[in-house]
Amino acid sequence: MKWFLQDAPENSIVLSSRVRLARNWRDMPFPQRMDDGQIAACCNRAREVLCSDNTQLQYVALSSLSPIDRQALVERHVISPALVESAERAALIVSPDEDLSVMVLEEDHLRIQAFEGGMQLEKAYQAARVPEGKLCPAGMVAFDDKLGYLTACPTNVGTGMRASLLMHLPGLTLSGQIEALQRALSKIGLTVRGLYGEGSTAAGHFYQISNQVTLGLSEEDILATLSQAGHEVLDLERQARQSLKENKGLAFEDQLMRSVGILQQARMLSSAEFMQLLSMAMLAADLKLYTPPQQDTLRRLMLTCQAAGIQKTAGKPLDETARDALRAKIVREALAHK
Amino acid sequence: MKWFLQDAPENSIVLSSRVRLARNWRDMPFPQRMDDGQIAACCNRAREVLCSDNTQLQYVALSSLSPIDRQALVERHVISPALVESAERAALIVSPDEDLSVMVLEEDHLRIQAFEGGMQLEKAYQAARVPEGKLCPAGMVAFDDKLGYLTACPTNVGTGMRASLLMHLPGLTLSGQIEALQRALSKIGLTVRGLYGEGSTAAGHFYQISNQVTLGLSEEDILATLSQAGHEVLDLERQARQSLKENKGLAFEDQLMRSVGILQQARMLSSAEFMQLLSMAMLAADLKLYTPPQQDTLRRLMLTCQAAGIQKTAGKPLDETARDALRAKIVREALAHK
Repeated sequence: MKWFLQDAPENSIVLSSRVRLARNWRDMPFPQRMDDGQIAACCNRAREVLCSDNTQLQYVALSSLSPIDRQALVERHVISPALVESAERAALIVSPDEDLSVMVLEEDHLRIQAFEGGMQLEKAYQAARVPEGKLCPAGMVAFDDKLGYLTACPTNVGTGMRASLLMHLPGLTLSGQIEALQRALSKIGLTVRGLYGEGSTAAGHFYQISNQVTLGLSEEDILATLSQAGHEVLDLERQARQSLKENKGLAFEDQLMRSVGILQQARMLSSAEFMQLLSMAMLAADLKLYTPPQQDTLRRLMLTCQAAGIQKTAGKPLDETARDALRAKIVREALAHK
Repeated sequence: MKWFLQDAPENSIVLSSRVRLARNWRDMPFPQRMDDGQIAACCNRAREVLCSDNTQLQYVALSSLSPIDRQALVERHVISPALVESAERAALIVSPDEDLSVMVLEEDHLRIQAFEGGMQLEKAYQAARVPEGKLCPAGMVAFDDKLGYLTACPTNVGTGMRASLLMHLPGLTLSGQIEALQRALSKIGLTVRGLYGEGSTAAGHFYQISNQVTLGLSEEDILATLSQAGHEVLDLERQARQSLKENKGLAFEDQLMRSVGILQQARMLSSAEFMQLLSMAMLAADLKLYTPPQQDTLRRLMLTCQAAGIQKTAGKPLDETARDALRAKIVREALAHK
């Protein structure tokens, strides 16, 4: 996850840019109508195209992974919760850095996704197009001249593209501006969701902003709209942070630094509380109130301290109490200045 | 206040031992009936007896002190709130270390008090007897063969002695045993009060345990009863701490260490919250969960971070918000490991 940890444009607010392309082959039925032979053929084709001449990309049958490993991939946004539900037949093709992945037999035959750190939508789009070009040469892909790419669910028909920005918006949340933002963005075809997509809550003030519409727009239009909106949200968030700092003064600083103190000393941290405190610590770092031991310490903790990540570190399944204790220990050690 | 900061017997639970002797001269009326001439004579006599041959003891007219300086003396337990109320005419004679003081014209002509760190009642009593012997030779002091020492308020008649232990009892407080303890101690003539005596609440789990009865008992009886009760409370507190640690486990450790974290990072600390957090940090240190930078760091903060102590540090009166901010700063800097 180097892309997530490295310094990247605007990444004190925009944690990552993601582009996902939904594609289907025209010579196979959609996944929900496939028989076992077609499932195997689909997985094999994807594997041969991407992994035979490219030792960088690894093919993983989801069924070969433990439930904890699957969940850890969801937590790192490499796969969707839906892919885990199809784990018996689905596969994943992934780069060592996890910045590029192809989910095989999620809702569609292929879900190609590319991540970049910070505000780099265009770069993510270009990265996703490389495997897409190999997997989906003209004539092989399910494409309709009028509608565009055909997908299992009609909401993806057209470009088959979902572009999204993962943004950290504590300023807008704490100053009560999120709902107005959601309404404004929905008018231009964008949606605001929590950290793990549809239906998830905005744990720790992290939000995904993405395009809702895939039909009747070009990829360039979608990227331009999202990018422009992203920059506007970024400016609003900066203003909100600054205004909280100026208007609430020491009480605000106190609120942020107490979160840092609790992260540094707590012996038990639930996942939800951790995300909340981490969000405040990130804000404290951005406002230069707090200096973490390393530039990427807080983002690294965000990646590793979800439920499955904790259990991967432990090397075994843990109950909630044990997870909360280990999470607190990892956080405490990471935040201790050497 | 070296006596408070130094290592002393049992001082992880018994912060200090105090003995106070109320005395009056037989050739003067009680303070509330004195005229200006008698007031001056009383102050001068005390000053001549104690300060003329002893440059270690300093004489201070209360009226010469600023309100903040008076309040700071109350916070350090050198004088009583009642002496501040009589500030226009009262005086204080005090040792450099503040372990010995004589309040002149509080409720009685003389209130002689000696402090020792930890559980050292007998030593405090002997220390108080030295100035008492000089000030009150037989024949000069108001004494009745049947009643004992005569005092302005009948509750002090007899020995005129109040002996007390300042104890830190978070274990008994958190496990809900304080009220039962108060009832049990009252049956043997002892009272349990908050940090600043009668009517004050037990901020941060600090309690004063003292004798209620002064009449019909010898000084030795009173000291023996209090000392024995103090040792019993000490054992109960130790058991309560251990049992909280064992039964509540990590959740208890978490509660204590979060208090340390907040002390280390907060930007605003009210006096009440500070005492509460400090109490938890002291408990964490006693249970070896936390190591303060210096052995006396937490006790030193307890002495210096009350409202007037903060303003003495600032060198000027501060409003509550400014006090809370400066308190947080002093605490944060004291707890930062160099």
